[in-house]
Amino acid sequence: MNFKIVLKTVGKLLWAEAIILCLPLLVSLYYKENLFHIYLIVMGLLLGAGALMNLPKPEKRTIYAREGFAVVSLSWVLLSFFGALPFVFSGEIPSLIDAMFEVVSGFTTTGATILADVESISKSLLFWRAFTHWLGGMGIIVFVLAFLPQKDMQSMHIMRAEVPGPSVGKLVSKTTVTARILYIMYGALTIAEMVVLLCCGMPLFDSVTTAFATAGTGGFSVMNASIAAYNSLAVEIVVAVFMLLFGVNFNLYYLLIMKQFKRAFKSEELWTYIGIVAVSTVIITLNIMPVVGSLGTALRQAGFQVASIITTSGFGTADLGTWPTLSQFIVVLLMFCGACTGSTGGGLKVGRIMILIKTFIREFRRAVNPRRVKCIKLDGAVIDKEIVTTTSVYFVVYMFLIAFSTFLIALDNFDMTAAVTSTISCINNIGPGLSSTAMISHFADFSNFSKIVLTADMLIGRLEIFPIFILFLPSTWRKSA
Amino acid sequence: MNFKIVLKTVGKLLWAEAIILCLPLLVSLYYKENLFHIYLIVMGLLLGAGALMNLPKPEKRTIYAREGFAVVSLSWVLLSFFGALPFVFSGEIPSLIDAMFEVVSGFTTTGATILADVESISKSLLFWRAFTHWLGGMGIIVFVLAFLPQKDMQSMHIMRAEVPGPSVGKLVSKTTVTARILYIMYGALTIAEMVVLLCCGMPLFDSVTTAFATAGTGGFSVMNASIAAYNSLAVEIVVAVFMLLFGVNFNLYYLLIMKQFKRAFKSEELWTYIGIVAVSTVIITLNIMPVVGSLGTALRQAGFQVASIITTSGFGTADLGTWPTLSQFIVVLLMFCGACTGSTGGGLKVGRIMILIKTFIREFRRAVNPRRVKCIKLDGAVIDKEIVTTTSVYFVVYMFLIAFSTFLIALDNFDMTAAVTSTISCINNIGPGLSSTAMISHFADFSNFSKIVLTADMLIGRLEIFPIFILFLPSTWRKSA
Repeated sequence: MNFKIVLKTVGKLLWAEAIILCLPLLVSLYYKENLFHIYLIVMGLLLGAGALMNLPKPEKRTIYAREGFAVVSLSWVLLSFFGALPFVFSGEIPSLIDAMFEVVSGFTTTGATILADVESISKSLLFWRAFTHWLGGMGIIVFVLAFLPQKDMQSMHIMRAEVPGPSVGKLVSKTTVTARILYIMYGALTIAEMVVLLCCGMPLFDSVTTAFATAGTGGFSVMNASIAAYNSLAVEIVVAVFMLLFGVNFNLYYLLIMKQFKRAFKSEELWTYIGIVAVSTVIITLNIMPVVGSLGTALRQAGFQVASIITTSGFGTADLGTWPTLSQFIVVLLMFCGACTGSTGGGLKVGRIMILIKTFIREFRRAVNPRRVKCIKLDGAVIDKEIVTTTSVYFVVYMFLIAFSTFLIALDNFDMTAAVTSTISCINNIGPGLSSTAMISHFADFSNFSKIVLTADMLIGRLEIFPIFILFLPSTWRKSA
Repeated sequence: MNFKIVLKTVGKLLWAEAIILCLPLLVSLYYKENLFHIYLIVMGLLLGAGALMNLPKPEKRTIYAREGFAVVSLSWVLLSFFGALPFVFSGEIPSLIDAMFEVVSGFTTTGATILADVESISKSLLFWRAFTHWLGGMGIIVFVLAFLPQKDMQSMHIMRAEVPGPSVGKLVSKTTVTARILYIMYGALTIAEMVVLLCCGMPLFDSVTTAFATAGTGGFSVMNASIAAYNSLAVEIVVAVFMLLFGVNFNLYYLLIMKQFKRAFKSEELWTYIGIVAVSTVIITLNIMPVVGSLGTALRQAGFQVASIITTSGFGTADLGTWPTLSQFIVVLLMFCGACTGSTGGGLKVGRIMILIKTFIREFRRAVNPRRVKCIKLDGAVIDKEIVTTTSVYFVVYMFLIAFSTFLIALDNFDMTAAVTSTISCINNIGPGLSSTAMISHFADFSNFSKIVLTADMLIGRLEIFPIFILFLPSTWRKSA
């Protein structure tokens, strides 16, 4: 492992965070909050730490897979740590563990909160919290690559480790240009939502933060009652539609811009995603109708929640705890499913699930008829054998991790549903959990130990396991080159 | 598909069941029950159906993988159907769906019952119910192969489809001899348990049926309170030890008989199995101690339940519903784990889990260091690449099936824990489930639809998915050869 280049790259990312912190600083000035000095202190710490990490001069500047993983995992942990300091220093979230949980939940676009009363938090901190969603959605490092390009970071290995999904394709040959195109489309969609929300009568601050949280499919709201607080069908429809849009593979938007409509609409994953949303909405609507009273209310709740869960946003408009078991279980399945590859959503991703199902069908056919060995196709193209194997293994590890994490959470002695769903919710970056009696809308009652475990789950889920694991591998810490 | 040979083979298996039904018939005579005519009617039906299936003369007599699967799945369904008739005709389980559930639960060694009051059932039927466990444990067809050898059935494909685990090895070159050796060791261990239980003061009838149910790691008891009814520490220890013994790969016993001690005790799977039992027992003991009062009671309950669940027997001595969440969750993990490959237990099997973990470690090393590609070893030998892939795929399908089945069970609107654990319990052939408030010791309250789904789960779990799926494949029903 080439430590020096890893440290140097992470150090530069800390500098980038110092610059980004200007945004909440400006917000705090606008709202005349007494938090000015706090942002300055944290920015100073970031600049100092970054400078320290830039002291050793690396002999070799190449970043291999191993270094790429290390940069991503280390920077996500450190950026979250420093990002949590404003909450701690301001005293609004006094515990560092709580603040780390909150910021990791932000960057990983989980949206799980330890705040029982969100509305008591200062505006600039709420802005920062929502902005972490926006940054984390498309990738913090991808953002830095796009707008603060540096010659040390021109590595596809970093992007590959940070962008979710079984395979990452470059849109254009240059990594930084790809990153920039992604972020421009992402920004345009975010601004579009902001404007539409304003038109629906949502206040400016709420529109901005809600758009950030939707874009990253995060789910942090500035209201205790989440989206239900606005009590507006229009707002719910807008947020639901944009959640679903942000759950689509961004490559498809690029294809649309390039006027390759046919190729874009040929995507099997897109249609499967739309199909899952439609079928789930219909079943849940019929299932909850007797409970909520009318078809209209049922459809409104079902539609919004399906969009919120499958995209792993986790905005709330209904108490899932009052739903029948069938609907609750569909919600759990959607938590696993997640949105499309290359979107800002978490979870397993529709593409992975399709590969898994196709793998099974192939294996079954092979068991029955050993002479016929077929390859697996998606969108008409043969999928690399390597990806097929890795996808199955990924699923196995993922389930084992959920089991292990639930085991640790079970020490808190909440009921079993609570222990399982809070783990599933965090590892898939969704947000709320379910107990056997109600929805878990915040994690304030969990022990510090459970909060640490869930924080790790969020990181592991967002970075798709491997990058975080490398930190625990002894050979990582052995010096070489 | 060569239908004629499949029908012929299944027909002969029906004849074999007619012969086996003499045993409960003798028991009913001994206890002077008025069930004599019922067994005779069912035997007549079996002989008639078997004769009908033997009418068409197959041109080719070879059994390929496809035919092997078909023989196994079809015979398990039909043997269960006819095996259920004595319960229906006697009126003791009037519903055919309930009776099928009970007998499938018997043959698959699940031990889940729809009987709220077991003690009201006639002795000979209780005997038959326990004997289905014993037959199903090592495999019904393996039994027939061992003692009623027929030249049509000399196929390794049939044995491979029926014996659980990722790989089936023959002990000796001839299939029938292998089957006979397996059944002789199995019978000897069963008789040993019977004798020890008698020495502990258990009545003869209870000793015989309990030994059958332990041997198959089934879990049917002739008492409503299961093993707790005997209120004897000695009985609990004996049953626990024998459950664990029947959870060991029978190949190891063969090695012991052949005096290859070193090879037998070198088994990685054996030591992992022992390790899991020990660690789980210790954690649960410490966790439930405050609830049950004393260390002694805690150890007694924990030890018995760990043995009962990991071997997928499902005998009860404690109400798991009163245990803390951590212990309940360990129980759920043990349900998945199951016993060793080549034992009579269900579940994923320790061997599969070891392969899965080793696969993950290899993939992770490869992601970090792509140049180093290693193969996976177990007991010092390299595992076939095919088995490694199939094991991952098996796990994926298995989880998807659990999700799909839980979805169907959720229609019953029991709580989520109940829907999930009853599926897990049936597909892993364990028996009891858990709700969020108590242990589910019988399935009488489930809807007929759920009972049918769970019956299918038990068969799918016991036959390890593929053989049952072949029945739903259109190409199976296409005529060829």
